[in-house]
Amino acid sequence: MPTIQNPRLAGLACIRCDRRYEVADHSTGCPACLAEGRPMNLECVYTPGESTGVDQPYLRPVTLGEGRTPLLTDVAGAVPGLDVALKWEGANPTGSHKDRFSAVVVSRALYAGYEGIVAASSGNAGVSLATYCGRAGLRCEIAVTDDTPARVVELMRDLGAEVVSFPRSEQRWEHVAAYRDSRTMLPVTNFVVPPVGSSPFGIEGYKLVAEEILVDRDGRAPEWVVVPASRGDLAWGIHLGFRELLGAEAVPRICLVEPFPRVAAVLAGADLYATFPGSTRAMPSLGGNQLAAQAVEAVRRSGGQAVAVDDESVLAETRRLWRAGFPLEPSSAAGLVAVSRSLAAGTMTPESDVVVVATAHGLKGM
Amino acid sequence: MPTIQNPRLAGLACIRCDRRYEVADHSTGCPACLAEGRPMNLECVYTPGESTGVDQPYLRPVTLGEGRTPLLTDVAGAVPGLDVALKWEGANPTGSHKDRFSAVVVSRALYAGYEGIVAASSGNAGVSLATYCGRAGLRCEIAVTDDTPARVVELMRDLGAEVVSFPRSEQRWEHVAAYRDSRTMLPVTNFVVPPVGSSPFGIEGYKLVAEEILVDRDGRAPEWVVVPASRGDLAWGIHLGFRELLGAEAVPRICLVEPFPRVAAVLAGADLYATFPGSTRAMPSLGGNQLAAQAVEAVRRSGGQAVAVDDESVLAETRRLWRAGFPLEPSSAAGLVAVSRSLAAGTMTPESDVVVVATAHGLKGM
Repeated sequence: MPTIQNPRLAGLACIRCDRRYEVADHSTGCPACLAEGRPMNLECVYTPGESTGVDQPYLRPVTLGEGRTPLLTDVAGAVPGLDVALKWEGANPTGSHKDRFSAVVVSRALYAGYEGIVAASSGNAGVSLATYCGRAGLRCEIAVTDDTPARVVELMRDLGAEVVSFPRSEQRWEHVAAYRDSRTMLPVTNFVVPPVGSSPFGIEGYKLVAEEILVDRDGRAPEWVVVPASRGDLAWGIHLGFRELLGAEAVPRICLVEPFPRVAAVLAGADLYATFPGSTRAMPSLGGNQLAAQAVEAVRRSGGQAVAVDDESVLAETRRLWRAGFPLEPSSAAGLVAVSRSLAAGTMTPESDVVVVATAHGLKGM
Repeated sequence: MPTIQNPRLAGLACIRCDRRYEVADHSTGCPACLAEGRPMNLECVYTPGESTGVDQPYLRPVTLGEGRTPLLTDVAGAVPGLDVALKWEGANPTGSHKDRFSAVVVSRALYAGYEGIVAASSGNAGVSLATYCGRAGLRCEIAVTDDTPARVVELMRDLGAEVVSFPRSEQRWEHVAAYRDSRTMLPVTNFVVPPVGSSPFGIEGYKLVAEEILVDRDGRAPEWVVVPASRGDLAWGIHLGFRELLGAEAVPRICLVEPFPRVAAVLAGADLYATFPGSTRAMPSLGGNQLAAQAVEAVRRSGGQAVAVDDESVLAETRRLWRAGFPLEPSSAAGLVAVSRSLAAGTMTPESDVVVVATAHGLKGM
């Protein structure tokens, strides 16, 4: 059965100024805010109606069975001193949370009549998008950097993607940007500087993480949800899900995890559109020296916090976690390091009720 | 909460002679049949009682959220000419159906007071057992062959397993056999020649595949369930699950998939304990020149069939499937080749109701 658009999908709205737009691929975010030099992502808006859970923009989406990942509890070994629960996103079809994004965004591309999608990614997103495009019969072009491991490029090509490689990360974005007005190839990841984030359609897929956490806990919201982030697509999507289900006042606090202070710097007074010094080799999916506002908003609106974690601690924690039965990639293990840091800092206590989003397993060797 | 034994677990029974044994690790199968030179696996026996699904030997097992994998339907691209459904076992925590076995067998080892487990595996089983042993705080020793890819050995070691390597496959079994009377290390994979198969406790975990297929189809059994096999642990376990839920007369037919005729040869009159010529490079997890009787019984008792598929066809199909959004390892893609063969042979038709067990994804690069 073909993918259809949710008849209650009414349009998109800027997450800052709330200006409304028709349903379309506004790949540079809110045009009005962009014109003011303050790029800002949009979010989907629905007319009220009957719903058994969070609203989704496409019904009967392209699927490989993503989502409904296990919430692992009783994992005392995950963080010494605190019984966290792990939302195990590695159980998605290609092993990461990105499959949730891919399912929706590829459904969007298919519904809107594109021949394919284009994205900048050097890892999980590229593998995931390639897989879902293959499933949907769409073309997939992934822009990587020259230092992307050969194994990852090979995976993407085996999955049918066209892979183009560039020396510098910014050049990938320029490549994707060239498709901004294409009627055949849809750009689905950020290419604006300063960044806005990825397609708001795809981000809707992340709302289901919030829904599943609530379902598995009989409706009881956790106090904290810990989310590793680069430009915050996942953190923002999870926040949107909780807001939709619980109301803006009752959302769990987002603990955003980053490889060096970016959101933490903004919360401490830095300019959102600054360039933040720092780098990471261990957590490539969390890198980047500029922020998307949505990452800050996920923290600010939920009364949350941002925690920076260093490569060395994360690699040591990754090795420990593998031996404890949790084969996470370092960008995921970062979430558990952040919990330890929060315990030490007193923002979490041994009694805190914490869900860590374990974003991807590390078995693909990426 | 600690793992406990199902109070209704009454013992084990030989799957041929039905002799009963107490709950213990009879790693060489039925002692009486072994003495007669006809090794035969045991199965768990339960006293009747209330149950919402298939019985399991251990309650509150060691878990990483295995099972409840998606049943992908509407996958017209998977096999041209027939709408099969795919039971996507790659969505298990370490990416293969083996996690179901590991969860139960590691729970058994923990409950029975062993310090660890030992197994012969050059792939998915080793990675899975290492992960679950890490989770349970048990030691794990995996015996591999020298031609096991370095990447796989590295994965097992990163997961905390002790890996020992041997030039020939039989030597792995000899190594495991040395633990047959150990009170500290429990052998969980076959080491008997001719083979019996793996631990009957672990095989119980596979019954849940049958249960989930029925639940996802509102109780309606498929006509065929296609299962790639070496010694038939998975095929037998799935058959046991259907038998428990539907009764022996109403089970789906098992289509067992093998890299060269073994079960097919026995069904055509060959001796069960013969050595079957053939080899496979593409499907290492389906190799072996001797059969376990349970593989034949799964086919025979279900009115099924065995289909041999060749490396070349399987590799070509694997490449095609990856580009269609199904990144299966070749040993899994073999199931879809078998369906095509069955369509050509007329044992299946375009109207057949077929579930293919997609046993593992290929993203680990194994």
